[in-house]
Amino acid sequence: MSVQAIQKEEDGRINGFDPQAITATVDALRNDPPLARFAFRARNQWISGGENRSMIQDFFGCGTEDTSRAKPFVYTNGEPPVLLGNNEGANPVEYLLHALAGCVTTTTVLHAAARGIHVRSLRTELAGDINLMGFLGLDPDVPAGCEAITIRMDIQADCSDEELDELLKFVHGHSPVCNTVCRPVPVVIERMQRR
Amino acid sequence: MSVQAIQKEEDGRINGFDPQAITATVDALRNDPPLARFAFRARNQWISGGENRSMIQDFFGCGTEDTSRAKPFVYTNGEPPVLLGNNEGANPVEYLLHALAGCVTTTTVLHAAARGIHVRSLRTELAGDINLMGFLGLDPDVPAGCEAITIRMDIQADCSDEELDELLKFVHGHSPVCNTVCRPVPVVIERMQRR
Repeated sequence: MSVQAIQKEEDGRINGFDPQAITATVDALRNDPPLARFAFRARNQWISGGENRSMIQDFFGCGTEDTSRAKPFVYTNGEPPVLLGNNEGANPVEYLLHALAGCVTTTTVLHAAARGIHVRSLRTELAGDINLMGFLGLDPDVPAGCEAITIRMDIQADCSDEELDELLKFVHGHSPVCNTVCRPVPVVIERMQRR
Repeated sequence: MSVQAIQKEEDGRINGFDPQAITATVDALRNDPPLARFAFRARNQWISGGENRSMIQDFFGCGTEDTSRAKPFVYTNGEPPVLLGNNEGANPVEYLLHALAGCVTTTTVLHAAARGIHVRSLRTELAGDINLMGFLGLDPDVPAGCEAITIRMDIQADCSDEELDELLKFVHGHSPVCNTVCRPVPVVIERMQRR
């Protein structure tokens, strides 16, 4: 844990969160459920081959458009040479693993904080198995996506192993990205018509 | 299209891909299907609160460990203030949209190239709707993940609207990240045991 994080913990924070802020947020949403409706967004521009770039800035949430970001986050997708690219960035499946790792981690430390569990350290190793026969359309029996994703988590916290296992079971069901992967979520591709 | 991309196209490339390389890759996998088995990976370290960081470098594919990346890609997840963070990076759901945008884009231009369709430009706008009552465990009837994801695509190519619509229908079924979101994919969280 960094010096800054320790100082924060000494300020009454738990896992880097202000417990009063957690309670205030939960109470606000409980009292006015429509505030919990969020819409996240990304804008992406193709560059060439397997290279493309997203800009991420605005979103809707808590009943309003967020304006907290002065400039967009910019991330580049690429492909390795074996997949006809030049390693311009991680590839989309690897970014999916990054999203899943982050979501499971944040869900874990936030719900741990809500339970009064102090997490000392947490790291994960993810692997996603995929058979490209599906992507290439070479075998109609092979799905295009991941066959399975495994998350190995090294977590140290001031609670029992049983409490950790119960927490992680809860996290599996409540992490938004984990749930989006585990559950069938409809994706619609609409082509914009130019006049 | 950039000057570099135009020069590449004049070198016989289509959508930034070498058609002979596409054919060679497809033929290699068709003749030896186990080569199509890939395992992508990410390693993530929690920092504090909603901030955590992934390193992405190695993967398994084409029957071997890839060594093309001299150093890892590093990406940081964060949360906006309204979600108790400090905008340390995009949040995990936004990274999921970036992964989806990139995968649908690359799948489109690669399969277009395989069909001899030249794509002049392609950009997308994504929105993912999510109700945080599920994430927070405040309503058991609300799923934790995205309710739906919409991709609006502005694509210009040298083919008919009917060919574009047919291409995008194929892409919806063959983009690995799109398929991973649309289809239920098992995610396993294993806790590492320290001695």
